Amino acid sequence: MSTTLPKGYDPREFRALTFHGAVPNFRDGSDTPRAYLERCLETIAEREAVVQAFAALNLTGAREAADESTKRWRDGQPRSLIDGLPIGIKDLLETKDMPTQMGCAAYRDNFPKRDNAAVWALRQAGAVIVGKTVTAELGGSHPGPTTNPFDPARTAGGSSSGSAAAIAARMLPAAIGTQVGGSIIRPAAYCGNVALKPTQGGINRGERQATSMSTHGVHAGSIEDVWQVAIEIARRAGGDRGCLGLFGPAEPPVAAKPERLIILETEGWAALDAASREAFEVLLEDLRRAGVTLLGRRDHRWIEALEQAIADGRAVCNAITGWENRWAIRNLVDQHPDGVSPRAKATLEKAEAMTPEDYRAVLMERAAAQLRHAALAPLADAIITLSCPGPAPLWSGDVPGQPLAARPTGDFVFNAPSSMLFAPAVTMPLLAVGGLPVGVQLMGQQHLDARVTAMARWMLDTVAPVCVSA
Amino acid sequence: MSTTLPKGYDPREFRALTFHGAVPNFRDGSDTPRAYLERCLETIAEREAVVQAFAALNLTGAREAADESTKRWRDGQPRSLIDGLPIGIKDLLETKDMPTQMGCAAYRDNFPKRDNAAVWALRQAGAVIVGKTVTAELGGSHPGPTTNPFDPARTAGGSSSGSAAAIAARMLPAAIGTQVGGSIIRPAAYCGNVALKPTQGGINRGERQATSMSTHGVHAGSIEDVWQVAIEIARRAGGDRGCLGLFGPAEPPVAAKPERLIILETEGWAALDAASREAFEVLLEDLRRAGVTLLGRRDHRWIEALEQAIADGRAVCNAITGWENRWAIRNLVDQHPDGVSPRAKATLEKAEAMTPEDYRAVLMERAAAQLRHAALAPLADAIITLSCPGPAPLWSGDVPGQPLAARPTGDFVFNAPSSMLFAPAVTMPLLAVGGLPVGVQLMGQQHLDARVTAMARWMLDTVAPVCVSA
Repeated sequence: MSTTLPKGYDPREFRALTFHGAVPNFRDGSDTPRAYLERCLETIAEREAVVQAFAALNLTGAREAADESTKRWRDGQPRSLIDGLPIGIKDLLETKDMPTQMGCAAYRDNFPKRDNAAVWALRQAGAVIVGKTVTAELGGSHPGPTTNPFDPARTAGGSSSGSAAAIAARMLPAAIGTQVGGSIIRPAAYCGNVALKPTQGGINRGERQATSMSTHGVHAGSIEDVWQVAIEIARRAGGDRGCLGLFGPAEPPVAAKPERLIILETEGWAALDAASREAFEVLLEDLRRAGVTLLGRRDHRWIEALEQAIADGRAVCNAITGWENRWAIRNLVDQHPDGVSPRAKATLEKAEAMTPEDYRAVLMERAAAQLRHAALAPLADAIITLSCPGPAPLWSGDVPGQPLAARPTGDFVFNAPSSMLFAPAVTMPLLAVGGLPVGVQLMGQQHLDARVTAMARWMLDTVAPVCVSA
Repeated sequence: MSTTLPKGYDPREFRALTFHGAVPNFRDGSDTPRAYLERCLETIAEREAVVQAFAALNLTGAREAADESTKRWRDGQPRSLIDGLPIGIKDLLETKDMPTQMGCAAYRDNFPKRDNAAVWALRQAGAVIVGKTVTAELGGSHPGPTTNPFDPARTAGGSSSGSAAAIAARMLPAAIGTQVGGSIIRPAAYCGNVALKPTQGGINRGERQATSMSTHGVHAGSIEDVWQVAIEIARRAGGDRGCLGLFGPAEPPVAAKPERLIILETEGWAALDAASREAFEVLLEDLRRAGVTLLGRRDHRWIEALEQAIADGRAVCNAITGWENRWAIRNLVDQHPDGVSPRAKATLEKAEAMTPEDYRAVLMERAAAQLRHAALAPLADAIITLSCPGPAPLWSGDVPGQPLAARPTGDFVFNAPSSMLFAPAVTMPLLAVGGLPVGVQLMGQQHLDARVTAMARWMLDTVAPVCVSA
């Protein structure tokens, strides 16, 4: 098996796989979903040994599904615009045909033989479920084996590590991730993906609804595929219980230029490395030149008010999610004392020191921040910020006897805001720093996922990627 | 085993078990939790063969827990005011020490060995988990074997059948139920319980959070025990994810006389039998004489507006819950084609005919009804209505070859409103019709659980139960 590593990342050169581009070829018979799949499987065979994006693969099932899709396209009766799309499913979601091990030893060989609602919807739409992608343990901070496809010494980010890496390695055109704090946007940003974390509740999480701030989302090589996958799921399975679900058109929204954007610093500004900041500022200057008005925290008191409300975003996300998971994790630890990482146990310990009053307090912080975000709607079309505070950090694994690294999958400092605001967020691969991807993020008001997607499409079409040395 | 059936039900005579009344005796050593438990176990031994309230019992575990509690009381160090309380847990909730079979053949011998968050909190407070109480299948309409303790030819109601029956049979002073549509208030009303369905989200449902409109609640023999159990759980485990949780005092709120009550007819008015209506009207007259102002749908346009908004309450509840459960039930049916009842399969079929747009439409109906309910806050202290449209119906089981009875556990026509309004509701055993219990319900604004409990306490203290013949 040969391993062809890209020599660094250049967003002007890198071409991720797209599926929407192949659809005309399926229509005219010059390509087929089975052939498309085989090209993906070749890349997986070539690169998986180093990248380690997958927790499980079902090649037989994928080939069967691709053959059925090929027949539907040949008959002119595809089920949807993603009929035949090879896709990876983060290994937190149940799939009928593969185990669901959640990156956690306690779930080794767990095989519930059920489909998550979103997986069910994907199959209904004709998508080809290729494999389960590696997740950090239980969606938390303890990393799996995945490496960054642009540098195997670096993390792919997490917790949707395998989904992000599979796109970066051109193994798949799309993959499903999930985000509680930063688990979609951060790995996507480190891996040069386009990705959407929808409005909270936008896509039906099925059995995974025990936390108030988690969403299913889509990693892909193109904004068109991101939207098409998201909307095909939502049209069939809707949103979470009690939620109106993702709104938007049945095909990718056309590009829309924003008139005004708010630059949000977030608590990430302080953590940002100088080169990434420089690259971002070049990009902002390009936007100004393109006629987009940019506002910052010194331009309006309500922008400053939002900055202050999210200044402790990571702590708010961690407290809420820690509390909401504590009974499930406690049961798991009691049943499998050695099946859960010290990182997860440390999180549990913090959660078990919380009282219901502590939890109420952070819920109220979150609600107040959402109110301040809503107040910005008249000021601008969306928020722009970075997706990560620099390129993916180096990660060579825990060292026995040493204290655990706090953030082996990177810092979610730029991601906590969209999570706690329940806001739709798209990351775009518009920066390269020292030959590694750094994402730029657009965030919109709740339920305006399609509008944010339209503006991201405009940026991807219009704004040249910025490359700087580290 | 002798079966001593009460000769009909007379609320002026019937004395349910209470726990709060025994606390002074634990303090002074004249009674112990172990002795209290043994009295419960005697009654269970005597009546369980006919009542069939339990899906599982853990007598050894209960006796051990009661002995530990006895020691704590003896040492003057009880963990809470429910330390030693023998309690039943509806068999939808996971308990470490007993199977969780959910009244469903597909879950036969399911034994996850985990504690639901509320069960964990009860153990922390020192309560004694005696058994799992029978639930209608998966909390739906297909009944278990439980009979009504006041007439074994009748249903105990559902889906919290065993919890309600265990109180009525004086087997236990308290039990946990759950309500999606009418599953706490209806069986409690048929069985002469006091019960609280809290504000949606008031008590942490732990692993059972996949639906937007289900609550854990408490069945008991007294309003004091209802409150004490609810608040002891909430003080330890809080509310559902994203919810502020139950608010209120650490001990039962003192009785409070309502100044003004709104009589809500609901779609139940048309289904009400003449005798139950007569009994309710006598009760209302007694309230007027006690100085309570009563308002009805003809007294204010916003009362009429709420009546209209809840006029289709059962259909709204059924559609929302059917949709939210459809993926879980589909997976279950696929895995266990013979393990799920035809009733549940019929519900699944209806849900699978729904689209995300249909679901959005009923969510918006629910939200609009909640707005109309909130608008009544300035008009009155609470809402009064019946808890069921008459005494528990006769139920002798399905007849092979005959169409399935639509509502073998009774009609939830008076319960859908509090469910869809997310409103706290207390049922009080204030009526008897033909020697069978019929409950009366107080409903409050969201989060005013303690206030509704205080008013229910006043009614139970002040208003004489009304008995009429059928």
